[in-house]
Amino acid sequence: MLDKIHIVLVGTTHPGNIGAAARAMKTMGLAHLVLVQPKHFPHAEATARASGADDILANARVFDDFKDSLRDYPLIIATSARLRSVTWPTLTPEVCAQKALQCAGQVALVFGREQTGLTNQELDHCHYLVHIPTHANFNSLNVASAVQILAYELSKQASTFDMPTRPLALTDQPAPAAAIEHFYVHLEQTLIAIEFLDPEKPRRLMRRLRRLFNRVQLSRSELNILRGILSALQKQRR
Amino acid sequence: MLDKIHIVLVGTTHPGNIGAAARAMKTMGLAHLVLVQPKHFPHAEATARASGADDILANARVFDDFKDSLRDYPLIIATSARLRSVTWPTLTPEVCAQKALQCAGQVALVFGREQTGLTNQELDHCHYLVHIPTHANFNSLNVASAVQILAYELSKQASTFDMPTRPLALTDQPAPAAAIEHFYVHLEQTLIAIEFLDPEKPRRLMRRLRRLFNRVQLSRSELNILRGILSALQKQRR
Repeated sequence: MLDKIHIVLVGTTHPGNIGAAARAMKTMGLAHLVLVQPKHFPHAEATARASGADDILANARVFDDFKDSLRDYPLIIATSARLRSVTWPTLTPEVCAQKALQCAGQVALVFGREQTGLTNQELDHCHYLVHIPTHANFNSLNVASAVQILAYELSKQASTFDMPTRPLALTDQPAPAAAIEHFYVHLEQTLIAIEFLDPEKPRRLMRRLRRLFNRVQLSRSELNILRGILSALQKQRR
Repeated sequence: MLDKIHIVLVGTTHPGNIGAAARAMKTMGLAHLVLVQPKHFPHAEATARASGADDILANARVFDDFKDSLRDYPLIIATSARLRSVTWPTLTPEVCAQKALQCAGQVALVFGREQTGLTNQELDHCHYLVHIPTHANFNSLNVASAVQILAYELSKQASTFDMPTRPLALTDQPAPAAAIEHFYVHLEQTLIAIEFLDPEKPRRLMRRLRRLFNRVQLSRSELNILRGILSALQKQRR
């Protein structure tokens, strides 16, 4: 699903940013990079910053002309750091990712020059703008960082996420409520025995301890440790 | 609301990453940077990559010792690129951002070394792990990119958050890390005294207990109860 999303970098000045963008893409499962008039490419600095995403650099397609680079895409979304005087249909990163993933064909996500972004003439070729919200006083988002954020949203929405799904061992499973009740009884007896809890004036001590241990959702093995501690105490007192 | 979130970079090798992290932070409205044993800092490459986020570098606090850097934080969340053999409570970036914003006190988001991440001993001081899902074949996320993604999620959640802002009573506020460390020392001594813990063969008992109590994020008054129980025990044994 992510394979149809292409990243298009226009007029990139620093080759390090091209490498960092490739790395950002690959971490999130994107593969296709398009470069329009890169100032230096290929370049050692790009390779260094790609840090293993060399295949993306090696397979990057390079164009001289902006329009040529985009002619095959049914959906073109341009990133913009600043609000434009012309009112463009502007998407949030989340909605951008959804729209891109819903598109039946290939999608171009276009990123402008480090200093000046995209021209209005270039924007005329795009269907939407996407705006990554930044802090009011500092909107200087690095181009590879912008690629990273949008690639992250795409990957998240595509839920191709490689989340930890290892099944829990029995000992790591949450302890059943009845077993935890036994622990509370055991704990209360112990607190009375060591004269920390006065059964005549219990106040809210047990309620507070229940709240604490309920919040933690003890696993079976953790419960065993706690009961082991109480038993060791009892044995000592005999 | 974002002002209470501090970014902690541990053992960063490349000064460029420190600058890029500062820039990433500032675009998303974060301001507080903490550096633990940076290999080179200050450094021209850090300043260059910060690209205007110089104030964050200038105000960064630098520590020699990992524990010292974290002693004031009631909530410490560590980033992890790989799945750990021990089952840690692991958050998605979204839930991490929510938890951090909901915390009544300051929050440390901790990022490890470029090559090796954080050690298990360092993780013992953290309450949660956050894992940024990456593509199965390439999990090499740059440290400044990881900062960018989490800062983006924080900023996104903060702007959409209609937070319950009832001020917490002091006793309900989360206990500071240093006070909880004292509790662990006290607990360990007690477990040795009642012969539940064999100092010759400690196995992973203290690590498992830390994980349990770190997960619950003890309030000041809960910590007082637990230390009161340990003191009552000691008094009895005399």
